[in-house]
Amino acid sequence: MSSEKHGDAIDLSHHLSAIARARATSPLKGLQRYLGRPGLISLAGGLPNEGYFPLSSVSGEVLVPDSFPLETSEESSSLSWFWKLFSKSNKEKTVPFTVNRFSDDPEDLTLATSLQYGMAKGLPQLNNIIKEFTEKVYKPAYNNWTTLVHTGNTDGIAKVAWTFINPGDGVLVSEWTYPSAIASMTPLGAKMVSVKMDGQGMRSDDLRAILSNWNESERGMPRPHVLYTVPVGQNPTGVTVERQRKKEIYDVCVEFGEWLSQPWVLAINTRDKDVIIVEDDPYYFLQAGPYEPKGVRHNHSNISTLGDEEYIARLAPSYLQFDYQGRVLRLDTFSKTIAPGSRLGWFTCNPVFAERIERAAETSTQAPCGFGQVFVTSTLLKWKYQGYIRWLKALRVQYRERRDYFIDCLDEEFHLQKTHAQDGFREGNVVYEGFLKSKSNFVNEKSVMNQRRVFSFVPPTAGMFIWLQLHLEDHPLYGQLDSTALELKLWTALAEAGLIVGPGDMFSAHPGQNGASPHGHFRISFSNTEFDVMKKAVKIFSTVLQQFMKDTTIPA
Amino acid sequence: MSSEKHGDAIDLSHHLSAIARARATSPLKGLQRYLGRPGLISLAGGLPNEGYFPLSSVSGEVLVPDSFPLETSEESSSLSWFWKLFSKSNKEKTVPFTVNRFSDDPEDLTLATSLQYGMAKGLPQLNNIIKEFTEKVYKPAYNNWTTLVHTGNTDGIAKVAWTFINPGDGVLVSEWTYPSAIASMTPLGAKMVSVKMDGQGMRSDDLRAILSNWNESERGMPRPHVLYTVPVGQNPTGVTVERQRKKEIYDVCVEFGEWLSQPWVLAINTRDKDVIIVEDDPYYFLQAGPYEPKGVRHNHSNISTLGDEEYIARLAPSYLQFDYQGRVLRLDTFSKTIAPGSRLGWFTCNPVFAERIERAAETSTQAPCGFGQVFVTSTLLKWKYQGYIRWLKALRVQYRERRDYFIDCLDEEFHLQKTHAQDGFREGNVVYEGFLKSKSNFVNEKSVMNQRRVFSFVPPTAGMFIWLQLHLEDHPLYGQLDSTALELKLWTALAEAGLIVGPGDMFSAHPGQNGASPHGHFRISFSNTEFDVMKKAVKIFSTVLQQFMKDTTIPA
Repeated sequence: MSSEKHGDAIDLSHHLSAIARARATSPLKGLQRYLGRPGLISLAGGLPNEGYFPLSSVSGEVLVPDSFPLETSEESSSLSWFWKLFSKSNKEKTVPFTVNRFSDDPEDLTLATSLQYGMAKGLPQLNNIIKEFTEKVYKPAYNNWTTLVHTGNTDGIAKVAWTFINPGDGVLVSEWTYPSAIASMTPLGAKMVSVKMDGQGMRSDDLRAILSNWNESERGMPRPHVLYTVPVGQNPTGVTVERQRKKEIYDVCVEFGEWLSQPWVLAINTRDKDVIIVEDDPYYFLQAGPYEPKGVRHNHSNISTLGDEEYIARLAPSYLQFDYQGRVLRLDTFSKTIAPGSRLGWFTCNPVFAERIERAAETSTQAPCGFGQVFVTSTLLKWKYQGYIRWLKALRVQYRERRDYFIDCLDEEFHLQKTHAQDGFREGNVVYEGFLKSKSNFVNEKSVMNQRRVFSFVPPTAGMFIWLQLHLEDHPLYGQLDSTALELKLWTALAEAGLIVGPGDMFSAHPGQNGASPHGHFRISFSNTEFDVMKKAVKIFSTVLQQFMKDTTIPA
Repeated sequence: MSSEKHGDAIDLSHHLSAIARARATSPLKGLQRYLGRPGLISLAGGLPNEGYFPLSSVSGEVLVPDSFPLETSEESSSLSWFWKLFSKSNKEKTVPFTVNRFSDDPEDLTLATSLQYGMAKGLPQLNNIIKEFTEKVYKPAYNNWTTLVHTGNTDGIAKVAWTFINPGDGVLVSEWTYPSAIASMTPLGAKMVSVKMDGQGMRSDDLRAILSNWNESERGMPRPHVLYTVPVGQNPTGVTVERQRKKEIYDVCVEFGEWLSQPWVLAINTRDKDVIIVEDDPYYFLQAGPYEPKGVRHNHSNISTLGDEEYIARLAPSYLQFDYQGRVLRLDTFSKTIAPGSRLGWFTCNPVFAERIERAAETSTQAPCGFGQVFVTSTLLKWKYQGYIRWLKALRVQYRERRDYFIDCLDEEFHLQKTHAQDGFREGNVVYEGFLKSKSNFVNEKSVMNQRRVFSFVPPTAGMFIWLQLHLEDHPLYGQLDSTALELKLWTALAEAGLIVGPGDMFSAHPGQNGASPHGHFRISFSNTEFDVMKKAVKIFSTVLQQFMKDTTIPA
């Protein structure tokens, strides 16, 4: 079912919020039939003259797609790759490109076009690239899906919020979730409805239970019709929702949409019963796979021998692959694969949703920055599809190496014990528990068990973060301070010692209400620190924890 | 009064909308005391590694500040400046700059910083430039004003809307106004309250009358507390609000704010009584001054002999110059002075407003595009303040020349008669009335008066547009079709003949309700067409009008 293409006349306009409905129609509507006629003179727009754009050309030096290796050796991570790559003897290999203000070839990128006002859709060259990429990589299951550029997933989510959420609506989210998404929805009066997780991510059975048992008057809001999820390298837990679970979740959403049997019928009166899936997927290409301990680590994967098709087939599928009803709204970004400063990404969704979001863009951000579009498009034109895939494969290897190195450091500074989670949001996963090392040099393996367990974590299968669960049962203030307060006390001690980590409470679907749970959490990023600094950071963590476990000062 | 600096403890937080109040506080709040400590290791953020940004450097060739002349001769406009400037014998003069991914000098712009996630405030180098520019050019009248970058005025206005307008609020606008601003407010349920204009722009007496006589139950909304205005080269009318009128309007807004006598008092209960001024000012540097007919045109101005201070002093002042209470929220953009594709501009306002808008940016657009910031900042660093002012002076001369040339073309194709407007939104201004030329070659001056008047306009003093009032009283269908329908019939005839102009109705504060007024309008842009194409466009306009005035077909 999931890979078949279905009918292309899906109308989901009943999902739109009052705000989205109130948006104007396209200002170009009356112009459409004239635009593009040869020789047409337009004095309608408010366009400054391209002759006065002060940049006569812009240029870039872009790294070649195979700048980073697909194979890493165990030793490589103990040296700084950074130093190796950029030392003088090892100069990076780049190819140049230049974009001029004007060109005789209408196919060329020019500054005259890309720095001018333009359609909120962005540059055609970029759209072609995005469309091809989405088709080949995500393989949406229906025909008339479309793409639309946005200025980064955060802005994309804000536009989704104003397009689909009415004031006071509930939004389905995982119990741990990305706080910035919540922060862009709550000013609208939206309330988060937390769905339980297990080791495979959001639980489909809990989702069904919530939707089945929804009592509007008890909950004080209609049944939610928007589900927000970061399914790959979930932020903050690092879990990846694989094929089977995604299929289950998609099917639950279908179950609560009445137009199931007749997707082409406009089901106005079922508005509060449908669940659309907002798939925020920045870490898709950082799917690192399972962690293997240092001693038994194999050559990281056979990624260098995989063909592109095979490589893609082994990635967790997007919800788009199951989406035969057009209820998925996917957000992709160039932030993790090119650079966050590009402020560029795209939606993939049905054309009804895309049209309303495009109107929202016209009256806010307009087209993404022209400079950003020029440089991202030029880079991708240089690389071509194959080159970009090569680049993405290498990124995965690089981030995997960083994850592995960080966990190796934890293994050096603490005693790590492998176990299995039996319940909670990690249920079914391999968990590593961290025990403080004895200061004695004569400690043997046996005595580890007498040490105090201070944290545990599931190695993330994608993304940039270790989601560390704190175990502070042995702390002298345990019971006296709740878990949020103890978490904050430890966070402050680390900060005072020069190490900043992400406080866990802010990633809760209901921040401030986690003090009741027995564990605090930290989100720790391994993405952007040199290897020797990571090592140092883990040393600080260990030293501070040793002291902290004896520290009975109650914070002011 | 207006140039004195006043106390800096103004708190206007009672202006904020419920949406703005519901926004989160800064996620960095707890981190503030640690950030910047030497040697601090942060593993808190979700930053991709700068080593994986694929651009190793970007470069630009920027025009020198004096690329365009400050003096123009009458002949110059009859040739295409474009051809002259870019012909091979006359190559443009540029200076190069390069921004590398990394640099040893922490003061340098780098891609590592500007393409990374960063504060919504944008790059420090850009902020310094903006702050200096605002101080020197706009001279705000109080001390603790601040600036905040945004991603273009359209997005700026959208953020202002969500920050200051509650659903159902009224917003004060001119009777003709910029439709995109309305389009970003109306999805919120905001209703436009139209203030009458005269030849000097929005009328202060009508503004006072509206506010004094406000009847909440009759109007169905509380008294508006936001005034939206494009005061220079008003879009679409082209009028510029000069010093005296601005002072009057500011004073009316003060009159309706109860904290007048004690600006430092937090006046929570006066919320609906205060009027803040949203000054959307994209055309500020396109202040062309009055139009002089071709025969009597002087050398365009003595702009080349003016010092920078004097040049600035002769521009219409910003509302900021009168703003001793912090009630002005000004929007500047680089769209008209650098390029629209930069998607970059800034707010100037009090810090309370800026803080809430910054939080809105954090959960939507984040920082403006890093590539855009790099190129705009590099350009301005190359030019320095003086160079930028030189560039702006020349832009004004260039757009003035375009305006003059377009009106000259109208003068060639039609008989233009100079008169004075007695009432309406043009009251007090010099008006040119356009009469169809007789096809006879033996027409004499006298017979002009027997020709039919078909349009009239006030030459714009700034901006990019001629706002043409249509006079279709002599049209055979006049009376049978209303003005909006006749306007559309003519618009369609022009489009069919290959000329697109801006339909006037869309610029109404209440679009669709202008059919009742006796005149249709067109907004015609002279900013972005080569001179010979402008000439051709006016010829088409004339030919079509000749036919149109005899065309009795009633549109379907």
